Amino acid sequence: MSQSEGKRMTDIGIFNELSEYIAIRINSCREESHDGDWIEHKAHNDYDLWFVQAGTVRIQIGGIEHTANPGDVVFFYPQVPYMAASPGEGCRFIYVHFDYGIGGQQRILGDFPLSGIVAHERIREEAELFRGTFIRSTQPGGVPGSRLYLKAGLTAVMARIIELHGLGRYTGAFVSGRNPRKSEGSLDVLQPIFKYVHDHLHRSMKMSELAALAGISEKYFISYFKKALGITPGQYIYQVKMNRARDYLYEKKHTVQQIAGYLGYPDPFTFSKAFKKYYNVPPSKFV
Amino acid sequence: MSQSEGKRMTDIGIFNELSEYIAIRINSCREESHDGDWIEHKAHNDYDLWFVQAGTVRIQIGGIEHTANPGDVVFFYPQVPYMAASPGEGCRFIYVHFDYGIGGQQRILGDFPLSGIVAHERIREEAELFRGTFIRSTQPGGVPGSRLYLKAGLTAVMARIIELHGLGRYTGAFVSGRNPRKSEGSLDVLQPIFKYVHDHLHRSMKMSELAALAGISEKYFISYFKKALGITPGQYIYQVKMNRARDYLYEKKHTVQQIAGYLGYPDPFTFSKAFKKYYNVPPSKFV
Repeated sequence: MSQSEGKRMTDIGIFNELSEYIAIRINSCREESHDGDWIEHKAHNDYDLWFVQAGTVRIQIGGIEHTANPGDVVFFYPQVPYMAASPGEGCRFIYVHFDYGIGGQQRILGDFPLSGIVAHERIREEAELFRGTFIRSTQPGGVPGSRLYLKAGLTAVMARIIELHGLGRYTGAFVSGRNPRKSEGSLDVLQPIFKYVHDHLHRSMKMSELAALAGISEKYFISYFKKALGITPGQYIYQVKMNRARDYLYEKKHTVQQIAGYLGYPDPFTFSKAFKKYYNVPPSKFV
Repeated sequence: MSQSEGKRMTDIGIFNELSEYIAIRINSCREESHDGDWIEHKAHNDYDLWFVQAGTVRIQIGGIEHTANPGDVVFFYPQVPYMAASPGEGCRFIYVHFDYGIGGQQRILGDFPLSGIVAHERIREEAELFRGTFIRSTQPGGVPGSRLYLKAGLTAVMARIIELHGLGRYTGAFVSGRNPRKSEGSLDVLQPIFKYVHDHLHRSMKMSELAALAGISEKYFISYFKKALGITPGQYIYQVKMNRARDYLYEKKHTVQQIAGYLGYPDPFTFSKAFKKYYNVPPSKFV
């Protein structure tokens, strides 16, 4: 990968920035086999991945037909009706139902077109890792740690899908059918804020500025932001600043005073206090 | 692995049961090289793993010397003073500082003897996975998803350490030096409760019974439990019941009414409501 690809700032980079907040909850995970006359009409209640192990799965969503082959990974969003069938020889796949979110917002991906079929050659390593963790988790009696493994496997698969999309190598082709309730909030509306925060870390930012960028009245801004992203604007800015502080310290070429300045803290003492609150150590002892 | 090994109920199985609650937060992750005259006296503020890449690391804790070789993984607990050196050729390792906990309890492992050196042959696959995710996370500019990958790698390493200990194949040899503050609570005290809950799911359990098992006055019981485990006894029992409900439904040989009975619900309706609250689908549509 070239440096320019790595540097490209993409919308979905928000999940990298907020990686420490993101939580996965696995609701169920099983392997199923179907024979050639299987037809399923359904809509899932949570995120759902299918890891095709054998045979061919045909999926119809919004009148369009898609085909998944062995090794491919099918990613469904919640509440989207589909029809699945496996004409001919039948099929076998591992499915996992899960939530993927931040704080009270358990469905953080809805604004990104990730729902579709990820071709096996793009996700081979992660899909194999997941399959291994799945097999381990089905050992009789429950091996200690096996559910944690499963989470590791799913975390890697999701990281891969987000990476592929961020690098412009994958966009899901399923019609999302997403029609967010007003109360839920959309990350799209907040994207100008993420960029603005990123570019203005060196100075203090007022909630009124940020609200204006999103075109939301100041009164509703914080609660809108929190519903959409799962954390408040203040928590978001703090997290971004702590990430940058970490990166600057890793570079080993800036003083604590300089970093305090880059990040809009009035003085090194205030910065050190904020840093220590997050990392448990003062910046001077971090690296 | 034999079935009896898989079935053995070990204390550390609690983390498998509570896998959906466990959160990892990575505070820092870097590679360092040291030459032959390196000596470090330190105590970490959080959990710390070293993945030895080259050379030999000698670690002295509580007057005992330990040696870590390439491929070995060294696991430090917080607040334990050590001396590290690399006599002769020097050394190179990747370190990661992190929290591992549930809710407000960010140091959930302290009661288990996991701090020590995990020999490379026991953790090769997970250590390699972690190393791969580390390399990806250091790409210039921040590849989207790379911090999520890192979390996947660390989750797998921790799952492996917990698994090895649960199967009796690894016990950390570092003196823990742990002296829990009274306010923090110890999981040891709660172990009889975990077993009791496990064995009595079919009937309602009173807080007073559970408190008595731990030898804690009823008045302090809930807050003690929550400090030690990060969730309340009620949340713990609910999680265990939902795990078992899932397992029974997977078996496809029990009715909803039977499962409600196994899990101490007064009727199938109350069970279905509790189930749906957790899984977003009623038990009849789960599998």
